[in-house]
Amino acid sequence: MTIGIVGLGLIGGSFAKAYSDNDEHKVLAYNRSKEVIQAAYNDKAIDGELNEGNIKDCDLILLCLYPQLCIDYLTKMAPYICKDAMVIDCCGTKELICQSCYPIAKQYGFTFIGGHPMAGRHFSGYAYSTKTMYNGASMVLVPEDLNDTKSIERAKKLLSPIHFGKFTICDYDRHDAMIAFTSQMAHVVSNAYVKSPTAKNHDGFSAGSYKDLTRVAWLNETMWTELFLENKKHLIKELDYFITALQEYKTAMENDDAETLKKLLADGKHCKEEIDGITGE
Amino acid sequence: MTIGIVGLGLIGGSFAKAYSDNDEHKVLAYNRSKEVIQAAYNDKAIDGELNEGNIKDCDLILLCLYPQLCIDYLTKMAPYICKDAMVIDCCGTKELICQSCYPIAKQYGFTFIGGHPMAGRHFSGYAYSTKTMYNGASMVLVPEDLNDTKSIERAKKLLSPIHFGKFTICDYDRHDAMIAFTSQMAHVVSNAYVKSPTAKNHDGFSAGSYKDLTRVAWLNETMWTELFLENKKHLIKELDYFITALQEYKTAMENDDAETLKKLLADGKHCKEEIDGITGE
Repeated sequence: MTIGIVGLGLIGGSFAKAYSDNDEHKVLAYNRSKEVIQAAYNDKAIDGELNEGNIKDCDLILLCLYPQLCIDYLTKMAPYICKDAMVIDCCGTKELICQSCYPIAKQYGFTFIGGHPMAGRHFSGYAYSTKTMYNGASMVLVPEDLNDTKSIERAKKLLSPIHFGKFTICDYDRHDAMIAFTSQMAHVVSNAYVKSPTAKNHDGFSAGSYKDLTRVAWLNETMWTELFLENKKHLIKELDYFITALQEYKTAMENDDAETLKKLLADGKHCKEEIDGITGE
Repeated sequence: MTIGIVGLGLIGGSFAKAYSDNDEHKVLAYNRSKEVIQAAYNDKAIDGELNEGNIKDCDLILLCLYPQLCIDYLTKMAPYICKDAMVIDCCGTKELICQSCYPIAKQYGFTFIGGHPMAGRHFSGYAYSTKTMYNGASMVLVPEDLNDTKSIERAKKLLSPIHFGKFTICDYDRHDAMIAFTSQMAHVVSNAYVKSPTAKNHDGFSAGSYKDLTRVAWLNETMWTELFLENKKHLIKELDYFITALQEYKTAMENDDAETLKKLLADGKHCKEEIDGITGE
């Protein structure tokens, strides 16, 4: 297969390394910085640069830029893409990109499916990409028609060299609602948690729970700002649920109301148990 | 040494196993349930039961019950404790227990130091205790007089068979303020996080951040209710800081204010970086 990868950051770089690990596949990549292209050549992660002339050869094109840049790229390159090709983006939110790209694909006759690989690392950039980053991870696919099994099966086949552990198929609204909860809220909460004036000098007073709660506090603020604003409908709803829940514990403590506090804690315990089982895995 | 251990749960059981691992030490234990005493005998974790008759032989007595039960026990047993003995509790908050136990110790001539081992496990109870649970962990010591180096050094020596990695010495107010942030808030936040109606069916949409954020959501609600109410002065303050911080992100999103949102995220990132370094360890 010939794979076009647009953007050689952590996400695109990891796809490039995974596909090029298998000699059967040819990887063509676009990246603004030529230094990264050179690094990818040195790593034998790419076979050439992706451009208007050769994008027609791609069986699969993976858009691995920030959302608006993906849309801009596809808008510009759509006339050159082969009708048999499949285009999948890898952005963290899906409504904007799907609403923008489904019609472009329809107009030019190729297939677009929204995608979101559930894997990442603390740091961004090609330098941190690895060929195994997606091994066993979940890949969310967002086709325009959930019953379009032909396209879904083709996407799975095109992605099979990546060794995802699981594919989750859903529409963009469900994706964005779920991701607001599982990922975006985790970043907001962690980022807010460390702002307490008490945070300094916690050394000697903390065990695993502080470490876990604040692991994702250090983040790429430019990327998350774009993703949060795109998904603000769902994220604001999650923040409301969460702040309301926190205020209930606070009120119970202010009232010295042990019975209510214990019930609130038991409620959360039972939610966790029901969702993930007792061990929380 | 002869060590008295009051309460053979996760905390006391782990102390018993660690001390009894060394034949030089004799471990006497008190526990309400006789089944646990029998299990500890079977494990060779204890050499006998602790009672009014033999508590006078103890060089060190570790109180490993819930706070109020520790105070009740010490109040009842104080007349039988040797003047040379040191008593250390292991409760998660220190103001109530220290304010209650310092005067009891003074009245009967023995030494009381507040203690809090910074280690634990997901589950409570003797069955989960291990002789290595405290290896390398931090132990907080709360002496009545921070300049009482003689008692502090003696406590360290008495605890040396446990192989703590570090001792942190502070007064009870500092302990309780820090622990409200590092541990208690982490449990409230995690417990509240999973209450979102979106939480169900997150499978396929979550990577490491959801897992980390909700690891301690499953908790012992009876124990934490007592600890939270005892420490509500500090914990309510932390909840206020946190809710205020969360509302700032929410307002920025509601206003589509990318500049402010990015600044809020960068602020949190810089806090984390300053406190724990970029890698967050």
